[in-house]
Amino acid sequence: MIRIGICGYGNLGRGVEKACLQAKDMELCAIFTRRSPSDLKVESNTPVYNTKDLEKFKDKIDVMILCGGSATDLPKQTPELAQWFNVVDSFDTHAEIFHHFTNVHENAEKNQKVAIISTGWDPGLFSLNRILMEAVLPNGTDYTFWGKGVSQGHSDAIRRIPGVADARQYTIPKEKALEVVRSGMQPELSVRDKHLRDCYVVLKENANPNEVENAIKTMPNYFADYDTYVHFITKEELEKNHKGIPHGGFVIRTGETSNGVKHKLEFQLELDSNPEFTGSVMVAYARACYRLACEKDFGCKTVFDIAPKYLINEEYSSLLKHTL
Amino acid sequence: MIRIGICGYGNLGRGVEKACLQAKDMELCAIFTRRSPSDLKVESNTPVYNTKDLEKFKDKIDVMILCGGSATDLPKQTPELAQWFNVVDSFDTHAEIFHHFTNVHENAEKNQKVAIISTGWDPGLFSLNRILMEAVLPNGTDYTFWGKGVSQGHSDAIRRIPGVADARQYTIPKEKALEVVRSGMQPELSVRDKHLRDCYVVLKENANPNEVENAIKTMPNYFADYDTYVHFITKEELEKNHKGIPHGGFVIRTGETSNGVKHKLEFQLELDSNPEFTGSVMVAYARACYRLACEKDFGCKTVFDIAPKYLINEEYSSLLKHTL
Repeated sequence: MIRIGICGYGNLGRGVEKACLQAKDMELCAIFTRRSPSDLKVESNTPVYNTKDLEKFKDKIDVMILCGGSATDLPKQTPELAQWFNVVDSFDTHAEIFHHFTNVHENAEKNQKVAIISTGWDPGLFSLNRILMEAVLPNGTDYTFWGKGVSQGHSDAIRRIPGVADARQYTIPKEKALEVVRSGMQPELSVRDKHLRDCYVVLKENANPNEVENAIKTMPNYFADYDTYVHFITKEELEKNHKGIPHGGFVIRTGETSNGVKHKLEFQLELDSNPEFTGSVMVAYARACYRLACEKDFGCKTVFDIAPKYLINEEYSSLLKHTL
Repeated sequence: MIRIGICGYGNLGRGVEKACLQAKDMELCAIFTRRSPSDLKVESNTPVYNTKDLEKFKDKIDVMILCGGSATDLPKQTPELAQWFNVVDSFDTHAEIFHHFTNVHENAEKNQKVAIISTGWDPGLFSLNRILMEAVLPNGTDYTFWGKGVSQGHSDAIRRIPGVADARQYTIPKEKALEVVRSGMQPELSVRDKHLRDCYVVLKENANPNEVENAIKTMPNYFADYDTYVHFITKEELEKNHKGIPHGGFVIRTGETSNGVKHKLEFQLELDSNPEFTGSVMVAYARACYRLACEKDFGCKTVFDIAPKYLINEEYSSLLKHTL
């Protein structure tokens, strides 16, 4: 049994917990939190500890799955914990991945640990599809679309506007853009061409809806470059209709193998729960992490380094007979 | 530059040739044929040799791409040529893959060569997606659909019927089945539920269409278990409308990460030319084959053993910065 630890117990931590409980080759040994362990109600019977005690577990956990955020938690936690543990994270600030990799790699190699960073679905499964599709169809163009799904960052940005009590923002790919991409025309698409932003907003009492709507639509980076739609709803409607954290998206590549001979490759995800699915992907990469550590293939890795067979709990001969 | 050889010059060999010419890190050095080399008209300026001379090239070719058929060529050629070369094949008789693997592995290991078998798209990219999807969504079911596309084997079977001058058979997934699979219901589907078979047939003079249609529709294994449609057309119509070799298909997996929390993963291919795309996939795996040989990771491999980074002609740091 692979002994798993979870560090951080928000939505993602709970997703990883559920996925671990489904994995027949894994034992969930400990959950670590910065909060007081006695205050934490976990879904399984897993013991909870404070993150201060992490080092004490260095010989008791085979893989530590890091469920903190990419903004401030992981840039510090992943390199630090790679001293003591094989680790998996879902670091998703695309522009910072190379820097993060370098930091983690040094500690992981020095301490003979394996760290797999930026797992999940984007970065993660979508990245894997981008590289795979480019490799097999080099003369072409790929496009990534996200949604329909909840963007936590954009929802938070709306909540910070004065007069807003609560909000939920959906990123939605434009049908027209999907259609033209799938046609094989390889168009150049602007940010506005690809996605629209749909916002469900609960106002505070006496807030001015026009001011709030204007503040959203003109917010730089987040909304100004998009077609943005704002719907004012009640707290009850938000609770009833917008509680879930669905997400998904598309990686599409079109291109030619010779003059006029066209091909289309497409990978799609439709997820009821972004954190549960991301957690499930992380658990598969935790299995690979353990196996690479057993083979002493130490250092920092990404989804690009992982042979598919390492992800699955099944004998190689059985894979040849039933899956290939 | 990776020095490539092609063994076998039918549709697939020509597809590999085109893909090699697009690869900036490869040099197509030789094409081998069982026919008389002087009779072979190849699209590039690549020199042509007889397969009798293969052994002479054992230090002049880094990877030999085998483009023979799975029925009689590859079971013999792949193990034999793995004595002298790193090899890639597209062996696609699913039920025989384990046996083929065992044969090839012995010779490849003994002679310090790398052999990657059963590349292409099914087996190949579809297999990779089946394993990947099962790994990240273990509690679920996957479905593979093929088409719309030309089945060479079924077209040949029709051509063997007395009274048939020529024929083209399309395998087509049933929309209804795709729909119910995508809904997440995880249905049990029979062979007849999943695909229909559409046949375009040119009759010989004086042939009896009713007899031919009946012979097709009742042919065991090939057609009897399917809804089969037969259209009689002229030689000219066949030439004009059914010349291409398109194919494609779908791998779909649906499942849950916890009670009622559903997810759908889907991979789609739509290919103008089956042999050109298969050839392009083989060339990407030839790159991986060469790199594994450089790392002295000898023996027989499949798509399950290959880390994605080995498939693409791009620096790892650039992949981290731009693709992850």
